[in-house]
Amino acid sequence: MNADAPFRKVAILGLGLIGGSLALALREARAATLITGFDADPGTLAKALALGAVDAAGAELGAALSGAELVVFATPVGAMEGLLRRVGPFLAPGAALTDCASTKGEVARWARAHLPEHHRRFVPGHPIAGSEASGIEAARADLFRGARTILCPFPEGDPEALAGVSRLWRSCGAEVCPMAPAAHDAVFAAVSHLPQVLAYALAHMLARRPGARHLMAQGGPGFRDFTRLAASHPVLWRDVCLTNRAALLGELRGYQEELGALAEMLETADGAALERVFAVARQARAALP
Amino acid sequence: MNADAPFRKVAILGLGLIGGSLALALREARAATLITGFDADPGTLAKALALGAVDAAGAELGAALSGAELVVFATPVGAMEGLLRRVGPFLAPGAALTDCASTKGEVARWARAHLPEHHRRFVPGHPIAGSEASGIEAARADLFRGARTILCPFPEGDPEALAGVSRLWRSCGAEVCPMAPAAHDAVFAAVSHLPQVLAYALAHMLARRPGARHLMAQGGPGFRDFTRLAASHPVLWRDVCLTNRAALLGELRGYQEELGALAEMLETADGAALERVFAVARQARAALP
Repeated sequence: MNADAPFRKVAILGLGLIGGSLALALREARAATLITGFDADPGTLAKALALGAVDAAGAELGAALSGAELVVFATPVGAMEGLLRRVGPFLAPGAALTDCASTKGEVARWARAHLPEHHRRFVPGHPIAGSEASGIEAARADLFRGARTILCPFPEGDPEALAGVSRLWRSCGAEVCPMAPAAHDAVFAAVSHLPQVLAYALAHMLARRPGARHLMAQGGPGFRDFTRLAASHPVLWRDVCLTNRAALLGELRGYQEELGALAEMLETADGAALERVFAVARQARAALP
Repeated sequence: MNADAPFRKVAILGLGLIGGSLALALREARAATLITGFDADPGTLAKALALGAVDAAGAELGAALSGAELVVFATPVGAMEGLLRRVGPFLAPGAALTDCASTKGEVARWARAHLPEHHRRFVPGHPIAGSEASGIEAARADLFRGARTILCPFPEGDPEALAGVSRLWRSCGAEVCPMAPAAHDAVFAAVSHLPQVLAYALAHMLARRPGARHLMAQGGPGFRDFTRLAASHPVLWRDVCLTNRAALLGELRGYQEELGALAEMLETADGAALERVFAVARQARAALP
């Protein structure tokens, strides 16, 4: 692929927050001559067309994929395996593929299993963007600007496919970072999947109390930020948890130990120990760029 | 006090984020003829004067308090008892008092114990504002605009003092909400002190790993929001935890149970149960105004 010319045809499978934003971003960057969308939901298809995010959209994989040189799976991880089983027959011979799912080990395994012919041109990916919002209604052309996209290319992967997928993300303003799938899943178990579960746990605990709504409304800006993740889509996160279960459980066990130690410090009113923990935490958090 | 006329003299003890912002807000609202500040730190005093936040500032309680009709304790809760022991002799006879500390049960107890003459004119308070930032450098005239200030008046309290303190906060753009001290401490154990400890726990856990800085930098906007509280001042929060220990421990125990249940669901790959918990959490969080 020429490094400057726009892609001829990009197919985006799944037109939610991520897929819709990607279409808008490619449009704004004039990075693709033709963008086609696939989604199972007719309302989403209509909105994607109305927004001008895609040139054509439908619930037929063949039409979306036909002749596409770049195919982006932008569905939640729970829909990935089913789609990977179905796309094979419709792929153009030299097409590069990538995805946006939040876990990468299982996705890589599925791609190897279900696209034996084509997996070398599949580059598992994960744009670190998004919010608790979901759906095409929340899509924004600048969602990936200044963000990072993790790419987990197969060791046996096709370098041209990697170059094409990298160019796609850079054209949306994202920085591309390589990582092995297992490393990806370990890192994001710690900095994404665990915080997600912790936020859900707090909101769930408070939600079941009498007067929950009033109680939660008492929280200040800190509470709102801390629980923001809990407004995220339950099915999407269920599937993230299930596809990164071992790493997430490891992090959760470590966190439970951490809380056990803090509870002990509170029990014994050990102010010096609390202050030490808080100071280490603060220093690390404040050092974030 | 006349409901419209500005306060003649307001004394603010502690010129950090809260005290400094209060001074700037009163200034902007022209709510006080004279604002005096007290702080133990010479650098803070100099900055408060340079900002024009106060008319006079020093490390002498007598000068700050002399003739003040309204006295605001804006120190962390850990400094409150010491100050309450010291201010008595300097208070003008009719002065109304309030504070901004994050826990109210202990503050109310200290006020009764150390200001036996004057505690009826002391209105324990807690503005629900602020951020992980601290110090006068972070002060903003609009910090309390649209925020709530919880007031926990004594049953035997002076209605005029309550009216004066309420007027002070309303002039800064805050809404005043009454609450009993025990209710305050129970509510904020759940929606403030527990999330604070949970954020510290995660940042502390990650901070001690090799490559912690790189690991934490991988987090997206969700991680940044979730851990934002962990950048807060360790000593301040140590004292909040210690002065609301019983309520906080109760919340922490409940949260540990919550995590135990989630770990079990992950162990058994019980997707339906995870989805139920996440959905309840989402509904409650998304319902926040």
